[in-house]
Amino acid sequence: MSQVTINDIEVDIVIGALHSDLTTFMNEWKPVFSRFHLIIVKDTDLKEELQIPEGFSADVYTKSEIEQVVGSSTSIRFSGYACRYFGFLVSKKKYVVCIDDDCVPAKDNAGNFVDAVAQHIVNLKTPATPFFFNTLYDPFCKGADFVRGYPFSLRTGVDCALSCGLWLNLADLDAPTQALKPAQRNSRYVDAVLTVPVRAMLPVSGINIAFNRELIGPALVPALVLAGEGKIRWETVEDIWCGLCVKVICDHLGLGVKSGLPYVSRTERGNAIDSLKKEWEGVKMMEEVVPFFQSVRLPQSATTAEDCVVEMAKSVKEQLGKVDPMFSQAADAMEEWIKLWKSVGSA
Amino acid sequence: MSQVTINDIEVDIVIGALHSDLTTFMNEWKPVFSRFHLIIVKDTDLKEELQIPEGFSADVYTKSEIEQVVGSSTSIRFSGYACRYFGFLVSKKKYVVCIDDDCVPAKDNAGNFVDAVAQHIVNLKTPATPFFFNTLYDPFCKGADFVRGYPFSLRTGVDCALSCGLWLNLADLDAPTQALKPAQRNSRYVDAVLTVPVRAMLPVSGINIAFNRELIGPALVPALVLAGEGKIRWETVEDIWCGLCVKVICDHLGLGVKSGLPYVSRTERGNAIDSLKKEWEGVKMMEEVVPFFQSVRLPQSATTAEDCVVEMAKSVKEQLGKVDPMFSQAADAMEEWIKLWKSVGSA
Repeated sequence: MSQVTINDIEVDIVIGALHSDLTTFMNEWKPVFSRFHLIIVKDTDLKEELQIPEGFSADVYTKSEIEQVVGSSTSIRFSGYACRYFGFLVSKKKYVVCIDDDCVPAKDNAGNFVDAVAQHIVNLKTPATPFFFNTLYDPFCKGADFVRGYPFSLRTGVDCALSCGLWLNLADLDAPTQALKPAQRNSRYVDAVLTVPVRAMLPVSGINIAFNRELIGPALVPALVLAGEGKIRWETVEDIWCGLCVKVICDHLGLGVKSGLPYVSRTERGNAIDSLKKEWEGVKMMEEVVPFFQSVRLPQSATTAEDCVVEMAKSVKEQLGKVDPMFSQAADAMEEWIKLWKSVGSA
Repeated sequence: MSQVTINDIEVDIVIGALHSDLTTFMNEWKPVFSRFHLIIVKDTDLKEELQIPEGFSADVYTKSEIEQVVGSSTSIRFSGYACRYFGFLVSKKKYVVCIDDDCVPAKDNAGNFVDAVAQHIVNLKTPATPFFFNTLYDPFCKGADFVRGYPFSLRTGVDCALSCGLWLNLADLDAPTQALKPAQRNSRYVDAVLTVPVRAMLPVSGINIAFNRELIGPALVPALVLAGEGKIRWETVEDIWCGLCVKVICDHLGLGVKSGLPYVSRTERGNAIDSLKKEWEGVKMMEEVVPFFQSVRLPQSATTAEDCVVEMAKSVKEQLGKVDPMFSQAADAMEEWIKLWKSVGSA
């Protein structure tokens, strides 16, 4: 592994506060979070006052601060998990790390606590290799390398734009799977990072991710809202939709997406069986959207993440708009988001 | 994980004997190998008599037995690592497992010996999922599952045709890397199997693999021979070439390729610096062949592995033949191999 220097001032940690009492969450993460600047965005539907322990450098945004920035006329929803996208919007840093408030640090196979932020930044600062699969996983990890037969011309790799971490204890399963296997817990710590190959689509989970905001910030867009969407991960799909957009855009721009380390440990919440009715909508949706994202191609003229989101919105409207109005609304939100991104960026 | 039953009579273990004394190798593997039928093929250049310990059910093939089957006029070379392809040819089993004779069983993170054959058969008997990336790795492994957002229509998966295992101690690096990092050893046991996505190319190593012979047997073809090829892995590319052929064919036929577990432990041999001169030829070759394999498409009329190899040979001759005569020779060997495969199969 190339030695990676983590510069504190390059990193924002964005936390979407879906729970009012962040004391336990933040104290568990204190050894990791305290050296960085935090952006805490309160779910706009959350009534109770936030409880945030001392000892952090944090900017906190509630509904009124959000409206000061985006106005009250925007059609973009910053409630539920989508509140954190506001943090992506107002961050000025190169790297953004975002971890759900029901996660605590995980332990590796040796029993050591994992510094999830450090691992994410290593993933983002070392190259990705989307154009050829390395059987030895991420060749830029410590002790790893390119396997025999890996073309030398592809060993330089490309910039990594998105790092998707994983989950111990409660993996990010959907409601049907969770309802079918209520006792299932993930205890398998897979000590690997890998680049997801070009043109391979993946369901990005927003629970534990990091990205290079300069490269693809605007592509992380809160666009798709399910009717009856709740405040439990498996009742939402905004992150899945966003991840498919980001992957297509990274493929188009020649950027990489990594998956694997770091793990976080997720605590349980929600009743899978209660959620099944809502979730079924998200499950059906995937059958429509995956063929779309697998085949959509962006024009060569789209050379920035902003351009790409706008072009993607056009294709969504044309090809998916007739399937369900929620897709047209998602396309509208994507266009609106880019306007917001540009206006906030130039403010 | 679906419970997998391993039927001894469905499996052949093929061993290419590049060393005359197999005593240590086979005794180390005895707990794993002894319940299966073995096909041991002696490198046709090896002069010394083979030493094989008792306690195995093995058919041994030497140069004279090979010539009885394939005749003495075939242009296919069964020397060096290519001797094992003769074992693939004469096997009558559904599954073939093939492990180099410089490997011994590895230990997992808990210190238990890995049954590499059982893991390979589990990989082959459970479906592969090449059309969408599962961030939780192989969903058919014990304790794993499909992640939220994975389309239900793709969860059935497809047949897995090839299982590529990995290496502890000495990873399968090329000579330049090995020369640069002589002390590097792989001690990272990554507890995962994954399907390599459709259209993603990988450098398959022949050190530790298994395949479904009924589905893709003839696609494992000893075709590409480097000038000055030696008896050390990094001096050869037959497995890399073969793997690229197999991956394209699996993609075309809608079959899967998995990579990851099982590990074997490789003992050291060979001098990387001595090999550099030879290896450079293989390294250069990859720059030519990767764009070819990434873009080659087989006609819809090719519906079997045999058809696919013949069609691939045509494309190789047309597109790579002009680059270097070794590619035309490889194409000839591919055609010859299919003739042999058919004649041996019908005998």
